[in-house]
Amino acid sequence: MKKISIIVTMLFMTAIAGAQNLTPIKLNEPNKDRGTTVMKALNDRHSTREFSTDKLNLQDLSDLLWAANGVNRSDGRRTAATARNDQDIDVYAIMEEGAYLYDAKNHELKPVAEGDYRGLIADRQVSVMDAPVSLLIVSDISRFKGLDFETQKQWGALDAGIVSQNIMLFASGCGFVTVPRVYMNKDELKKVLKLTETQIPMINNPVGYAR
Amino acid sequence: MKKISIIVTMLFMTAIAGAQNLTPIKLNEPNKDRGTTVMKALNDRHSTREFSTDKLNLQDLSDLLWAANGVNRSDGRRTAATARNDQDIDVYAIMEEGAYLYDAKNHELKPVAEGDYRGLIADRQVSVMDAPVSLLIVSDISRFKGLDFETQKQWGALDAGIVSQNIMLFASGCGFVTVPRVYMNKDELKKVLKLTETQIPMINNPVGYAR
Repeated sequence: MKKISIIVTMLFMTAIAGAQNLTPIKLNEPNKDRGTTVMKALNDRHSTREFSTDKLNLQDLSDLLWAANGVNRSDGRRTAATARNDQDIDVYAIMEEGAYLYDAKNHELKPVAEGDYRGLIADRQVSVMDAPVSLLIVSDISRFKGLDFETQKQWGALDAGIVSQNIMLFASGCGFVTVPRVYMNKDELKKVLKLTETQIPMINNPVGYAR
Repeated sequence: MKKISIIVTMLFMTAIAGAQNLTPIKLNEPNKDRGTTVMKALNDRHSTREFSTDKLNLQDLSDLLWAANGVNRSDGRRTAATARNDQDIDVYAIMEEGAYLYDAKNHELKPVAEGDYRGLIADRQVSVMDAPVSLLIVSDISRFKGLDFETQKQWGALDAGIVSQNIMLFASGCGFVTVPRVYMNKDELKKVLKLTETQIPMINNPVGYAR
């Protein structure tokens, strides 16, 4: 009986463990001269909902995160502008092994939750679950100080769209496929990622190799 | 007295003439293999609020509009995705001679209002008035059928951010400068452009050559 109790306790602890079995993923230095010309990337831009299940290699994952919202200047500014430079955007990488927060300053992925939550991103679009990584773009609208809720939400969505298009053009220019998606299970994602009330999941981009 | 009356009438008619003295600007076929690599464009991305007053030549103007929201496929789809493919975005080009609506299908600028309204875009950022063209990104949220107002506005802002980043990366990749701006005189712009209640000016990008 005592043994069962210990096992139950252990199972319970695993369930609430969060990210304790995951370690940070140190990303590679991005390749800052990769891909087709900008105009060719714009010409090739299209949404794809079918993905190879192959995982991204570390360089591709590194380039993807940096393209989305990486630091591109010595003063810490990013590949994506934010309204009033209020830096409201956080990018989460949802992968088979777990959910991670992109730490742009250190160019690494910080573990947030162990487990495969790609189903929460995919919602009813089952094919999207094949994508090895989905980038979830979250705006913390509380970083827009002194503004009404309405304006905060509008600016947060604008800034999220900007990051989403970085991902899109990285994909079309560097040989990946993606689709910007407004659908997802926001309530469950907020729980898993321990988001606060002011952190709004705006849009997601599953990314992978073409099938 | 009759003569004065005729002059006054003529002046009044000019004032309400709208775009009658402007003709459509047929844009050039875009150069679809122009610019640096996508990753270099992302690395070079930055906001600039200082512009040369030089006008864009027709090829540059053509490439800019196409990059922003041009047709890149035979089925009419664009360089920018929209939520649910509801095509809510319209791009206006605000130039010294007048305001134009970008007709992506015909790749031309349709006159909307004669006169220089760049000051309404610039609002209090005077240096922005130097930019020869400002692209105003408007979402007509009524094109999102069957959704609540809140969701419509969020999707409209997301879609506008996507177009804005196309402009940004076109600029950094092809040798122009720009800045995404949420500030502008929206009320006056709505009057000048004869926008309906559901057409929301979301964001603007003044574009020019570096000073």
